[in-house]
Amino acid sequence: MNPAVDLREKVNEANLKTVEIMMSGTPIWIGDSPAIEVVPGMTKNTILHAGPPIEWERMCNPMRQAVLGAVVFEGLAKDLDEAKEAVEAGEIILSPCHHHQAVGGMTGITSASMPVHIVKNEKYGNLAYCLPHEGSSFKALGWGTNDQETLDHIRWMRDELSPVLDQGVKALGGININDIISRAIQMGDEAHSRCTAGTLLITRKLASALVLTDTPRDMLARVFEFLQRTDIFALHLFMAAGRAMVEPAKNIKYSTVVTTLCRNGVEFGIRVSALGDQWFVGPAGKIKTSYFSPQWNDDVAGRDIGDSSIMEVIGLGGLIHAAAPAHEHVLKGTFQSAIQKTEEAYTISVTEHPSWLLPTLDFRGVPFGIDIRKVVQTGNTPLIDTATPHINGGFIGSGEARAPMEAFEAALRAFGAMISG
Amino acid sequence: MNPAVDLREKVNEANLKTVEIMMSGTPIWIGDSPAIEVVPGMTKNTILHAGPPIEWERMCNPMRQAVLGAVVFEGLAKDLDEAKEAVEAGEIILSPCHHHQAVGGMTGITSASMPVHIVKNEKYGNLAYCLPHEGSSFKALGWGTNDQETLDHIRWMRDELSPVLDQGVKALGGININDIISRAIQMGDEAHSRCTAGTLLITRKLASALVLTDTPRDMLARVFEFLQRTDIFALHLFMAAGRAMVEPAKNIKYSTVVTTLCRNGVEFGIRVSALGDQWFVGPAGKIKTSYFSPQWNDDVAGRDIGDSSIMEVIGLGGLIHAAAPAHEHVLKGTFQSAIQKTEEAYTISVTEHPSWLLPTLDFRGVPFGIDIRKVVQTGNTPLIDTATPHINGGFIGSGEARAPMEAFEAALRAFGAMISG
Repeated sequence: MNPAVDLREKVNEANLKTVEIMMSGTPIWIGDSPAIEVVPGMTKNTILHAGPPIEWERMCNPMRQAVLGAVVFEGLAKDLDEAKEAVEAGEIILSPCHHHQAVGGMTGITSASMPVHIVKNEKYGNLAYCLPHEGSSFKALGWGTNDQETLDHIRWMRDELSPVLDQGVKALGGININDIISRAIQMGDEAHSRCTAGTLLITRKLASALVLTDTPRDMLARVFEFLQRTDIFALHLFMAAGRAMVEPAKNIKYSTVVTTLCRNGVEFGIRVSALGDQWFVGPAGKIKTSYFSPQWNDDVAGRDIGDSSIMEVIGLGGLIHAAAPAHEHVLKGTFQSAIQKTEEAYTISVTEHPSWLLPTLDFRGVPFGIDIRKVVQTGNTPLIDTATPHINGGFIGSGEARAPMEAFEAALRAFGAMISG
Repeated sequence: MNPAVDLREKVNEANLKTVEIMMSGTPIWIGDSPAIEVVPGMTKNTILHAGPPIEWERMCNPMRQAVLGAVVFEGLAKDLDEAKEAVEAGEIILSPCHHHQAVGGMTGITSASMPVHIVKNEKYGNLAYCLPHEGSSFKALGWGTNDQETLDHIRWMRDELSPVLDQGVKALGGININDIISRAIQMGDEAHSRCTAGTLLITRKLASALVLTDTPRDMLARVFEFLQRTDIFALHLFMAAGRAMVEPAKNIKYSTVVTTLCRNGVEFGIRVSALGDQWFVGPAGKIKTSYFSPQWNDDVAGRDIGDSSIMEVIGLGGLIHAAAPAHEHVLKGTFQSAIQKTEEAYTISVTEHPSWLLPTLDFRGVPFGIDIRKVVQTGNTPLIDTATPHINGGFIGSGEARAPMEAFEAALRAFGAMISG
């Protein structure tokens, strides 16, 4: 047999196996908890960040600011200056969320006492974690602000939001995120930049359970008000679900399927099934942004950042604008451009998801499982939906960016080297 | 000046004025109340029904059954047999919902002590009413069942659901239904057969307000559970909103815009602005149905019934399948057929709504204001989304039906007669 054909078939087979493992995952939101109690490897002086590994010195400004905010939040320093000294003295361990079965939005900064959603892949038994979304206001550690207001809000999330959500989710016996995604993408969500339907579906489920808990009524009211003004709330559950779905699909021999896409604001990192935990990086993309105010423009925009691109790993977000013409409209596109972007995504994907279906494409399954061979062959790198941070911190727009070809080429070279010896 | 041209311009102008009045309406859900306390002309022995006027003898079976159920419900008879005697003895006043500023789903049966949503058109000051949706189970007075289970459920709605909703809505200072519709049709609702997004948006709003009321927690839980399993809940609020929007648009001289479309299961009735409260009727359509179970088929299907076609009067439902490809899929259509149906609706409409926008048509406004001239000219009668009742009562499918051309032709003849003298 022709060895090239033989190899191609082995890879195709391995890729089908990989996407089957991902798609058969059953991500269930089982509760919320302080990170230190559940996240593997978390310590009191560990701070997790988004994207591939990066040292303090090379971090972008929003991420640095968020790190300092977290150091103060944890009481490891009395103010931001002292926090900087502590970081520079090496007293703080900085580590990617992805090395801890976790994901983080934008800067992704997550520290010991911060709350996380816990999503369990019931089929495979593994867990994944993500800080709840901080909300759509200008300020958030995720966007790189670190003032009193930012930290007070995280404190509220820790002391009230997450404990209340935890009660509700446990009372419901968990919430199947797979089902929520399936319904949400039939209701205008692309499940990354737009998660309104997902948030509504989760809120309605929580309502009947939460009113029966012993949570004081004023606490319930504040939680529901937060959900009322946070259409994007579901994203961080979707992200944890994605993280939970990809973990069992790692290290499949011969598989060229992407298991991670993430950005730290400086570099875009990818991981590929057969290549296990190796990172392949390229520059974080410039974001094509629709700014929320004319006071902002590309000059003050940070680069593509966050672990939220786990959504594109599981066939959503930038891969399915066909599901979310209202989001394409925000990006100044048309219905046709939304369809076109989704058609492009099929050219780099292994298969179509059997139950995540696109109404505008006559219920075709979403493009699922990015194959690095196809990315390099077609020249189509995945389109990533993203939020745009201000270079000095803050949330200034919604946009899209391209994953860098360099990372896919590097991964494909490494794959070639591995199989040839 | 050519008198024909002159008339055409007068009509065009009147039609623009009519749709402007409709579209500028501001329907606010202000509370719920027993019908007897708010519905004009309601008495203890009055029973409202859907559609144009019809006598007991000519009513279809589901409507008759629902009438008898209501008579028992009101304590006007001790059982269904006695109820029938009372009706045949003329002790019960049967009157169309539409003659009482009200609308009713399917059979539309609404009696004195039953609860109604109250929607106020704040801009024009008028009110409209609709019984809350009874839910998506097989049984309901709306579907023509009248057993103990059916009546017990209405009792629960009267004693628990509506009083709780009333508290929530009042605590919120009302809910703007115009805004809910605007968002819902960007989330896959056509706002008639599919109202999932609308229901979710309303539920989320109610949650934060309701937990702060003194309603017992178990009552709140039952209400939220009902909303959880009743995706169609918002429809009856949308219907009351539609009813509130059309009332001030009646009696505009020279206007050929439709102000009512409704069905009693035997006849389809329309009213036209310039022609005030005159009814024009044709036969109620056969429904092209997707049945929920193979045990049902066209042989056991009732005909098109209900006041819910007020949604088509305000440019929604069957006129905007482009908004709801998931609903078109239920009807076994394709995305292209959904678009085509909406394109057709533009051919019979006066204008496009400025803030009810269709993402899949690049945010074109929904076709708004059906012009009877255009219906007769094009031969396109409005497509009506509808549920299908079993001929013996019960909810057996979702479908679509055509309004009958006869009604439009009769109205146009009457219009011609009126203006010519």
